[in-house]
Formats: sequence, structure tokens, C-alpha cells
Amino acid sequence: MNGGIGLDRLSLNQATVKRLGLREAVELCVRHDIPAIGLWRDRVAEAGLAEAAATVRAAGLRVSSLCRGGFFTHVDADARRAVLADNRAAIGEAAELGTDTLVLVSGGLPPGQRDLGLARRMIADAIGSLVPDAQRLGVRLGIEALHPMFCADRCVISSLGEALDLALEFPADAVGVVVDTYHVWWDARLAAEIARAGRRIVSYQVCDWVLPLPADTLLGRGHVGDGFIDFGPITAAVTAAGYDGDVEVEIFNAAVWDAPPDVTAATVVERFATVLGGFRR
Amino acid sequence: MNGGIGLDRLSLNQATVKRLGLREAVELCVRHDIPAIGLWRDRVAEAGLAEAAATVRAAGLRVSSLCRGGFFTHVDADARRAVLADNRAAIGEAAELGTDTLVLVSGGLPPGQRDLGLARRMIADAIGSLVPDAQRLGVRLGIEALHPMFCADRCVISSLGEALDLALEFPADAVGVVVDTYHVWWDARLAAEIARAGRRIVSYQVCDWVLPLPADTLLGRGHVGDGFIDFGPITAAVTAAGYDGDVEVEIFNAAVWDAPPDVTAATVVERFATVLGGFRR
Repeated sequence: MNGGIGLDRLSLNQATVKRLGLREAVELCVRHDIPAIGLWRDRVAEAGLAEAAATVRAAGLRVSSLCRGGFFTHVDADARRAVLADNRAAIGEAAELGTDTLVLVSGGLPPGQRDLGLARRMIADAIGSLVPDAQRLGVRLGIEALHPMFCADRCVISSLGEALDLALEFPADAVGVVVDTYHVWWDARLAAEIARAGRRIVSYQVCDWVLPLPADTLLGRGHVGDGFIDFGPITAAVTAAGYDGDVEVEIFNAAVWDAPPDVTAATVVERFATVLGGFRR
Repeated sequence: MNGGIGLDRLSLNQATVKRLGLREAVELCVRHDIPAIGLWRDRVAEAGLAEAAATVRAAGLRVSSLCRGGFFTHVDADARRAVLADNRAAIGEAAELGTDTLVLVSGGLPPGQRDLGLARRMIADAIGSLVPDAQRLGVRLGIEALHPMFCADRCVISSLGEALDLALEFPADAVGVVVDTYHVWWDARLAAEIARAGRRIVSYQVCDWVLPLPADTLLGRGHVGDGFIDFGPITAAVTAAGYDGDVEVEIFNAAVWDAPPDVTAATVVERFATVLGGFRR
């Protein structure tokens, strides 16, 4: 298998088929023999938490992660308290859905602020507050580094090394890091940081960097293999670090969303097999 | 002066007033008491090299840098040789223009390639080939880290630390690094890397990160103070590292280019004074 990852570890992140409700997304996975799904809170809420959990379980799917918590950076103390409460709710939802991973998008600069250090301290403080909840429910918080082009408005954690430095402040059973190829592929330190992360990697997400960037830069991601990312070395590094969980394909792209979901799912499976070296075991 | 940088160190990079020819840009600097200018090769060629050098000298301006060399990443060996020849010409032009700094934009992934390591080795090889020319003419090659969103198509050197690691492979009188706030502001390691760079910093360029990004992401830069960058700590770090050269304001932005050049120059001076702590000495 030359270091490839099998299709038995493929997970379809719900964001890739954003137009589908939870039940439709679950049925799509079943139709395409995709054994795991990454869920989003808005679609879970729409279906109802208990109903969503039952639907996924009845279909025999694993839930690879819940997206997402975070957005911790607010100048207003009440806003920060509200966000903590919402993140505690998300941890509870993750547990009920049967996943041990809550993905965190930590938040950008608070409005009118330019102090990256302050924003980063807010994030560290918030994660620290959530650790006991995470440990009690057996859910790990996955700190995701977002691409530096999102530093101002989405997430001031801009590299895997920075995410890892933050995660290492907390117990390993409560806090880890997410490796998303789209956000970290450019980093000359990536292989070293993945190795350093080791078992702290709680999620591996893949999609490709394609150009040109669209007007809404959030939606510029491509199917694996359509762009510039060299998935082989990154995947090998993540595997060598000891990560043996599901691998989520998560693509934010309006054209992908407008495609028939069965076409998208078939492409996801085919690219995963050819580019990540997957095969049916 | 609380660590600020005086207006006697302000340089207007020609790209900020892209519509102007060299003579017009020089006259603009004189009208606004801007003591230095960063030149671009296309505008120098248009004016004629000797004529350009004479014009700048007659006006009493310093030339803070010449932009730019680089674009070293080509699969074809003939293309790489042609690029080296062009870079040697650029070094000669820099010397004749009276600047000791040639800014390098090193190049993205070669077409059809995904191997960042290969691209980076091509860059290292090319810079190594240019070192004797640079030393002979007293011009330092400034490796510029570009924002990671340009990694695929413009420059695979994506962080100051990476640029510095590369520069340190070569003699200090031949190779250094450029600190451009737009490209590196997001980096949690920035202050440490600036300190590590020390006297290897050969150019400090400033402009602001503004949102949303335009369709052409090259043109998304804002006037100092219009965006998210906290210039105080970065400027203090660059100063503490020992950099005492000119500070270039370089803004790629279609709206800035369409503004009357005298308005642009007045804004550049005013923002430099208020945000970077400048004053007339």
C-alpha cells in the first residue's frame, strides 16, 4: 500500500455537500460506501440532535468530527462568556453524536483591534476554560490553524506550529490540532511540525489549493488533485506521526456545492483513492 | 521619539504610484520632501538606465532598493540560465542606480509541478550563482518572503524565518532578507525571526492588510493605518534588530493608483508620520 490511506478511512465532511440536510448527506455516504462523516452544528440542529445521532448510527457511519467551536475573540466580556457557553454546548453535542473531536476555528482580531497577542491570549484562556468539559465528556478540542489570509477576520492561529504550541499548554486527552492541507501546505516547517505534533493530531482534513482565489476567499478550495498541493509527503508525514483516524474531505466551493451531490461524492472517492493512495481493504 | 522612525527615512516605492514614469515619480518625491525612492526595473528601462540614475541623483534622492530580481523556478534549464542572466543585469542596474539592495521575488511552483522542495532548491542554487556578482558590485540580494497566499504562483518562500534560513547559507555582504509587513504580519514567530535576522535585514517595506481581498489578490494592499496591521511592534522589532535604512511604502492597489499622485504622496507622508512615529528631524 506504499503509505497510502485506505478508503476505509475516508470521511465526507458535510461542508462539501453544503446544500444537503443531514439525512441526505448520510444517505449519500451510504450510497458511495463512505464509512464516516464530518458533521456541522447547523445541520445537526436543523435535524434535531437526538434524531441526527440516531440517523448516523442507524446508517452505520462513524462521525469523524463535529464542526465547529471557537470564535473566542471578543473584547466584550459578556460576548466571551456567551461563546464559552456555546462551546460547552458543542462539546456536549459532539459527545452525543459519538465523535471525540470538536474542530475549533479560534477567531480573528476583535473588531477595531490590531493586537494579535491579545487575541491569542483570549483563545488560550477560552480553551483552558473548556478543558474540564472536554475531559469529562471525552471530546478533544482540535485547534485548527487557518491559512494566514484568514488571520485578520477568522483565525489568528496561522500555522500548525503555532496551533501545536498552544495545544501543548493543555492535557493531550483534551486538546489537539487539526491538520488541514488547504491551510498549511505552503509551510516549509510543515513536515517537522507534523512530526512534533505526533498523537496531538486529532483530525486530518484534505482539499486542494486552486487559483484564482474567488471573490469570497472562503470558497476557493478544490477537489483533491485539482490544484497545487503535493498530498503524498503531507499524508506520509501525518501517518508517520501516528495519526490513524478518519481523513475528512472538506471542500468549500460554490461550484462543488452546485454540482449534483452524487457526482461530488464519486469525485471525492475517486480522488481519495488515486491521490491519497486509498484502496478497499 | 519613542522608537518611531523619522520621515528622513521614508522612501516611496515606485509601485505605489504605478502610473507615473520615473521622472514624474522623482519630482513627486521632491515636492513632498520624501528623501528616498524605491525603483522598478521596467520604469528605469523606459527612462534609460543612465538617464534614470542621473535624474535621481540630480534630485538628491537616495535609491532605497531596486525591484526586482528573482523568478528563479523553471523546469527548463535554458529558462533558468536566462533568468540568471537577467538577474545579473539587475544587479548591475542596482549598482549604477546607486542602491545596494536588489529585492528578490523568488518564484512559485514551476508550471505543472507540486514539489515545493524542488522549487526551493532551484532558488537556493540561483542565489548561490549570483553571490559573486552581488559581492563584486556591492549589491545585496534581498530575499522577500511573500504572503503564503502567493506560494503557488509567485514565491514559495512564505515566511521570514524561511527567507532567513536561506539567506544564512550565503555571505552577509551578498544576501539578506526583506521584511514587508503585508506579507509577514500574521506570523506568531515574527518578532523572534526579526531579532534573529538582525543585520541581515536589507529592506523594510510597509503597507497594510485590508479586506476584502480584491479579485486580483496582488492589488489588495492598503495605506498604512487603513487595515489590520499593528505597525508599532513590528517597527520596534526591526529597529531593535539594527535596521537603520530607509523604509519603503509600497502599495499595490488599483484605487491608490487611480488617485491623484499628490494625494497619494501626501497620505503616505501623513500616515508614515502618525503610524510609524515619524517626524522631521
